[in-house]
This record gives sequence, structure tokens and C-alpha cells, in this order.
Amino acid sequence: MELKEFLSYRKAEIMTYLKQYFVKRSVTPKILSDSINHSLFSKGKAIRPILCLTAYETCGGVYTDILPQASAIELIHTYSLIHDDLPAMDDDDLRRGRPTNHKVYGEAVAILAGDALLTEAFYMYTSSFTVNGGLLIEALKELSSAAGLDGMVAGQVMDIMSESKTPDIETLKYIHTNKTAALLRASVMTGAILSGIKGSELYAMKIYGENIGMTFQIVDDILDITATTEELGKPKGSDLEKNKMTYPSLYGLVHSKKLAKDHIETAIASIESFREKAHWLREIANYLLKRGA
Amino acid sequence: MELKEFLSYRKAEIMTYLKQYFVKRSVTPKILSDSINHSLFSKGKAIRPILCLTAYETCGGVYTDILPQASAIELIHTYSLIHDDLPAMDDDDLRRGRPTNHKVYGEAVAILAGDALLTEAFYMYTSSFTVNGGLLIEALKELSSAAGLDGMVAGQVMDIMSESKTPDIETLKYIHTNKTAALLRASVMTGAILSGIKGSELYAMKIYGENIGMTFQIVDDILDITATTEELGKPKGSDLEKNKMTYPSLYGLVHSKKLAKDHIETAIASIESFREKAHWLREIANYLLKRGA
Repeated sequence: MELKEFLSYRKAEIMTYLKQYFVKRSVTPKILSDSINHSLFSKGKAIRPILCLTAYETCGGVYTDILPQASAIELIHTYSLIHDDLPAMDDDDLRRGRPTNHKVYGEAVAILAGDALLTEAFYMYTSSFTVNGGLLIEALKELSSAAGLDGMVAGQVMDIMSESKTPDIETLKYIHTNKTAALLRASVMTGAILSGIKGSELYAMKIYGENIGMTFQIVDDILDITATTEELGKPKGSDLEKNKMTYPSLYGLVHSKKLAKDHIETAIASIESFREKAHWLREIANYLLKRGA
Repeated sequence: MELKEFLSYRKAEIMTYLKQYFVKRSVTPKILSDSINHSLFSKGKAIRPILCLTAYETCGGVYTDILPQASAIELIHTYSLIHDDLPAMDDDDLRRGRPTNHKVYGEAVAILAGDALLTEAFYMYTSSFTVNGGLLIEALKELSSAAGLDGMVAGQVMDIMSESKTPDIETLKYIHTNKTAALLRASVMTGAILSGIKGSELYAMKIYGENIGMTFQIVDDILDITATTEELGKPKGSDLEKNKMTYPSLYGLVHSKKLAKDHIETAIASIESFREKAHWLREIANYLLKRGA
């Protein structure tokens, strides 16, 4: 099987799970349900849940066991996109080639749809599980830490506060590590934690997750300059327009690509001990790099 | 000990726990930390965590065991106030006698402080616990359901969508049940769940929680008309000004007071089997009613 097929198969399973889940959940009021569906069932790659399932499998688990827990991460990612796009934040009109949530449903409903998705992620996490309860709690700890004060939200605050400021290495690294890499690391780590692995194997997964996370954001920064609006699903050059602190703005394109490559090499080296079992994690790492090539 | 003393003692313990927690957590960037502190350490009554601790104690637990889990509910309540006050929502300038979060820190940081508090509630819940892991997961399920799609967020969406519409019983009940009563019920219920009680005793706690929750919001509706701006800590009559659907707007003041009283009677009757152990829950129920007398 080729990676493309692997990714599309896994994504289909995650989306099927999410669709069936929300049919059963029958969300009211209708506008809240519509608003959630608009953002959740758009053209996302579902890379975070895929990483979670794949890490779990690499560590010896049967990936279908943790579909709820992996899919919950997509809810958190989707909420973050809805809130990031708000007029008070990045003020974006387009996302994945469609109007952003607040453009369709208004700011109030968009804020609340984000709040609902974030909260529901924890309900999805706890309402159906096959793994050991202690591992579930450990994974929840990692996820809530990475999505909030030790990660995504802290990074987003720094990102907003750093607009139009002269880029510096420390701030840029803080933003990328927290805003993007933390949740990608947690996607990998929660899969690993739920499998029950510990010690050096768990640590290897952490290094893998952190490094692919950094590459993911560096490549996003690169694509904002090199890709077309159609490829991005949102206007090209929007980071530049908003004076965002990005890797190319500090290091230039060539050196940014080099850094993205270095992180992927570190990621792949860290999971060497998993041998053939880590096949898909290696393939995904290389794929994340190639997006920006 | 009188109720006033009981409440102030418990509140002090919760606030001490929260203060020490956030000292250890050392939140960055500083503006995020300031914004969180501004709303979390204001003049709230901490009634939700107090209810959680008291329910746990009524069911036979030692309340200090669940300080993290009870205090986490205050984080969720605080996030909901920050988001409710946003310009896109209720657009309020004053809360608990102080400027609202977005008035001080701007909309972007206020949205993110809310997101951080909601996420951190789940970290606080899972990062330190003395109870059985299975019970913790059960309580998390109840809390995330009540704070989101089966409660608070759904109720807030309906509240926003119903502004300036002719009040009807069904919509009004939906708003009050979900927007306010659900999280108050969950405060009681999570305390009860964490204690390990089941069956009819747990059901009694549910009825108690739901009914004091309804009274809480009916009394809030009444106070918006009868209290002074100083007593409220926010402008009097703001529901009227925003054409909110409230109990007095549908039933009038006298009948609304009667309904608030009925709910408290149901609440107190439901926990009769706990006898003396439910002393403080009864006292709190009567206190919530008297606020609006």
C-alpha cells in the first residue's frame, strides 16, 4: 500500500466515525449543529488523528480500539481553526477553500461552536473506551496540557502578540513549539500512552512528535509564500500581510527548508528502535516534509 | 456554624487551592496569565465548586480529597463568563463590579483566556487525584456533557438566538435548563459520582442539582429587575435591554418567585434520605432561593 492510500483510508475511517457519532448525538439548536458540521466535515487531512492511530499501532495496539480518542483530537484542532479565524484573531474569510465559520454563522455562533467542539472532545474521549482507565487519564493529561497552557493556546497568544514585531529566534520557536508542534506531539504521544508503552520507547515517540510538529509549521510558513491560493484553500501570503513571525521571515526560504529537513531526520532517527513497525510513521514524516519541497 | 461562615470558609479553601495551583503552573505569555487572573480571582462566590465539595461530603467523602476536581468547575464557569461577555455575545462592560476581560485585555486575549481556562479544567481534573480512576472518568463524562452539547454551550446558543423573540415556555425552559442548570447539576453530580454512590442516591442528587440550578437562573432573572447595579456588579436591567427571554418576562415577578420556591422544595425533598448529612445542601438550597426574595 502506498502512503496516499494509507492516509485516505484512515481518514475515511475517522470521518465515518465522526459522522456516525454526531448523528447519534443529535445536536441542538440546529444552527450549532450546522456550524459544527461546516468546519468539522470540510477538506481537512485529519493528520492528527491519523498520527494518533498510527502511533498506537506502532506500539502494538489495534488502531480501531482508539478511534474515539484519536477522533477527539480532530475536534480540538477544528475548534482551534474556528477561533483562529475570528475577526478578533486572524480575521480570515477563507479556510480549506470555503468561507470561515463566522462568515457563515456569525461570530457568536462561531465562538460557541468552537467552545462546543473543545468540550465535546473530552466527552468523546471519556464516553467510550476500550483501554485501561489509568492510561486514558494519562493520555487526557497530555492532551489537555498540549492543547492549552503548555501548548496551543499559549502559542496562539504569543502569535497574536508578536504580529508586526521584529522576528527573533526565541519568540518564533516559542510560537511554533506551542501553537502547532504541541498538539501534533500530543497526537503521537496519546496514541503511544494509550498503548501502554513507557520509558525510553515513550520518550522516542515524544521526540518524533515534537520534531514532525516543528516541520509541519515550518512547511506551513513556507507554503504561505510558495503555494497558490487554490492549493492552500486560503489566501496566499496571508502571514506576510499580517506581519506574522515566520521561519522564512527570519531565516529565509532556503534555510527554512533545511531546518524542516533536519527536524524530520531527528524524528525518524528517534523511532529507529521500532524498526518495521514504525514504517508508516516514517512515511508520514517524509510526507510532511515533502509538502513544502 | 452558620451558612455564611461555611460558604466563606469553603470559598477561601478553593481560592487558596487555585492561587497555589497557578503559582506552580507559571503561565506564559504574561498577558495570558494576567487575563486569566483578572477573571478567576474576582468576586465570584465559587458556588459550583462548593456544591461539588458539599455533595461529595454528603455522600460520605472527605471534601479535601477532591479540591482539584471541584476547583476545575470554577475554571469552566469563569471561561463561560469571559466568552458570554464578548462583544459578539452579550457585549457587557462590567462583571462582578470590574471591567470585563475583553475591556482590559482585548477580544483576542479574552477569547484565548477562555479557551485556556476550559482546557486547563481538564488538565486540573486529571493531573492530581486521589479517587478511583474509573469514577474520575465517569465524573469527567458528566462534566463535559453538561458544559457543552448537553448543556451550557447549547443553552447559550439558544439564548443568543432567542433575543428579541416573543418568549415561549419551551424555549425559556431549554435555555435555563441548559445554560445554567446543567453545570450546577454537574457540580453536584460530579461530587456525588466521585464519592462512589450509585442508583437511587445518585438519582436523588441529580434531582437536587437540576432543581437548584433552575432556581439559580430564575432568581438571576428576578435580580436583574429588582436588585441595584451595585448589588449585581453589572448594570441592572441588562436582560430587559437586550430583550432576553427570562422568567419574569414570561410569567411576571410574583409567579417567577413561586416557581423558584417550588424548585427548591423539590430539591430539598429529593435528598431527604441523606438526613443530617445533607444539612449544608439544604441550607445552600434555601440560600439560593433567598437571594431573590
